[in-house]
Amino acid sequence: MVDLPFDVDDPRLAAAAWSRVAEPPDQHAGALVDNLGATEALGWLTAVAAGRVDPGGEPWVRAVAGWVPRLENLDIRRELDTLDRLGGRLVLPGDPDWPTPLDDLGVERPLALWVRGGAIVQGRAVALVGARACTSYGEHVAADMAVGLAEAGTTVVSGGAYGIDAAAHRGTLGVDGVTTAVLAGGVDRLYPVGNTRLLEAVTTSGAVVSEVPPGSVPSRNRFLARNRLIAALGAATVVVEAAWRSGALSTASRAAQLSRPVGAVPGPVTSMASAGCHRLMREQGAVCVTEAAEVLELVGVAGEHLTDDDRPVPAGLLDDLDPAARRVLDALPLRGSAPVTNVARAAGLPATEVRAALGHLELAGRARRTGSTWARSR
Amino acid sequence: MVDLPFDVDDPRLAAAAWSRVAEPPDQHAGALVDNLGATEALGWLTAVAAGRVDPGGEPWVRAVAGWVPRLENLDIRRELDTLDRLGGRLVLPGDPDWPTPLDDLGVERPLALWVRGGAIVQGRAVALVGARACTSYGEHVAADMAVGLAEAGTTVVSGGAYGIDAAAHRGTLGVDGVTTAVLAGGVDRLYPVGNTRLLEAVTTSGAVVSEVPPGSVPSRNRFLARNRLIAALGAATVVVEAAWRSGALSTASRAAQLSRPVGAVPGPVTSMASAGCHRLMREQGAVCVTEAAEVLELVGVAGEHLTDDDRPVPAGLLDDLDPAARRVLDALPLRGSAPVTNVARAAGLPATEVRAALGHLELAGRARRTGSTWARSR
Repeated sequence: MVDLPFDVDDPRLAAAAWSRVAEPPDQHAGALVDNLGATEALGWLTAVAAGRVDPGGEPWVRAVAGWVPRLENLDIRRELDTLDRLGGRLVLPGDPDWPTPLDDLGVERPLALWVRGGAIVQGRAVALVGARACTSYGEHVAADMAVGLAEAGTTVVSGGAYGIDAAAHRGTLGVDGVTTAVLAGGVDRLYPVGNTRLLEAVTTSGAVVSEVPPGSVPSRNRFLARNRLIAALGAATVVVEAAWRSGALSTASRAAQLSRPVGAVPGPVTSMASAGCHRLMREQGAVCVTEAAEVLELVGVAGEHLTDDDRPVPAGLLDDLDPAARRVLDALPLRGSAPVTNVARAAGLPATEVRAALGHLELAGRARRTGSTWARSR
Repeated sequence: MVDLPFDVDDPRLAAAAWSRVAEPPDQHAGALVDNLGATEALGWLTAVAAGRVDPGGEPWVRAVAGWVPRLENLDIRRELDTLDRLGGRLVLPGDPDWPTPLDDLGVERPLALWVRGGAIVQGRAVALVGARACTSYGEHVAADMAVGLAEAGTTVVSGGAYGIDAAAHRGTLGVDGVTTAVLAGGVDRLYPVGNTRLLEAVTTSGAVVSEVPPGSVPSRNRFLARNRLIAALGAATVVVEAAWRSGALSTASRAAQLSRPVGAVPGPVTSMASAGCHRLMREQGAVCVTEAAEVLELVGVAGEHLTDDDRPVPAGLLDDLDPAARRVLDALPLRGSAPVTNVARAAGLPATEVRAALGHLELAGRARRTGSTWARSR
């Protein structure tokens, strides 16, 4: 017999309770709450737990058996009090500040978000993730990209971990951009401890967010589950550095499952910290991205954020010439001058065509006539 | 009136003469020699030059006007003597040692190859190219790849230039592999001068090759023309390092035009020497390649050269477990032990399932029972 000590008909309490009862991602809980609403679903669960209702088929028997042990001693008001003391708030699907991109997760959509800070996402978001064990190159690139994304008004989403995640948050904060950290454990204990200051700063920017209530430990499975939220919040996911096997790759593959573009930052082939990025490009069709503008191209509507193809490049001597003029200029002696017939022979072009090309080159200041011979202009 | 001082009915002399008369790539010369044969084509040209025959339409008038100046003082026996003194040989389309991949160039196929050394290609060839102004990273990767390709019995083709080309040749020579250099100028003057020793060593391995006769200077246009030969000789072309604009990119785009796979080696996004490689991946669909095995995959028949997906990686604690066992192991306390009901609550799984998983974990040596509680195995 289960008798919950809080008002199970309060939809916010019921939703919060579900985020404690079901271990994410839980497709059965997602489907149940989607279809019945959190309060009715919780009523059904307590009735099943009390033996008053039959749960239905085998999958539901199994799901309920996973939930029931967590009904014991469940008083979600405690976790909500903790959140309240931290100045946080609960955000539920359908709330005005619910990030609707999460709805693409379907029945794996989180049942609630426990939030410290401001808006979870402002405008468009990009997930910038990568290895904890990164190199200074990776940190540098992550921070640089975060700066560029933030300056373009993009929210930078990451996981609050050491390494690439921290560099992404820091880079964004450095230009007063908006950055959000999605944690695997409760938002009451900012994890990892060494990033406490950083994550506190994140709460003053975007938000620190979790789908599990305060008090929940950041277990391995929760890191994997959390990665789907990062992937879903980002209009694209970019992996900055990742070893051949890395949690960041799971975020990338969740993004790909959601049909979100995935970018990978190249690095030296001699760096194991880039092996996962190269693997993503080779095996998963990730797009090679080297700067923020290229990331924005991934998420922009067509033409909105094209990279600058006119970026300054050293102009070659023959660049702006038509093929014939190029051959003629090429055929002019490096020193001294030559008559048209010699130039024609060297160029392998008709003399008439060589004469015309020399005229153009003269006008362009690339060749000059001296009597009956031609020379390069200096 | 043109009167050539050599036997224009000798097919080898005629073909050699055409390789002097037509500036490559010359589609008219290619089509003419393909259709009439070199001797008849040369006879036709001298007749046109003498005004005895009408060249035909405007394009042919134009082509002939480019060839005629080079008929003056043409005695191709001089160039063949030079080649002979260098121990070289002329290789023509249809000869037993003609590299048939060049035939894919159609009317831009070279009219002759002036060769110093042994076989131009032995077995399968890969073109390994890149910037002259490369970094030590690029040199290192080029040499490494060349070694891997050579050890797999692949001929490494490059352009004999400083930088990446030289590293590719050197790497191959270092393991007694087969490497071939395609020069833009004549094979009598090994260019660049600083690579003379290296190119002499290349002649003892594969070959040093040019489509223009001895005495021809390596002009800019000839470098571009030469690049198509490198691209055509390689079953794939790999660019190791290249600036945003680089001659190596022209080789890559010729390879793509020939439907040959193109690989690009990633590098730091902060290195301008890798910008062209990243551009190839982003804009031209080049495949990211990080080692010789991945290059071999580009050229291999299916399954022949798969990279080793079982390359050693650090095994994670949860790697070889099914999802339920993983959650249960994750839910066991880090220190001390816990009864099944607690583990079930932490895992969010039914107690029956937890008991089964604990049994498996015990057999696998990952968990141990102490009385009625369970703990992680150390």
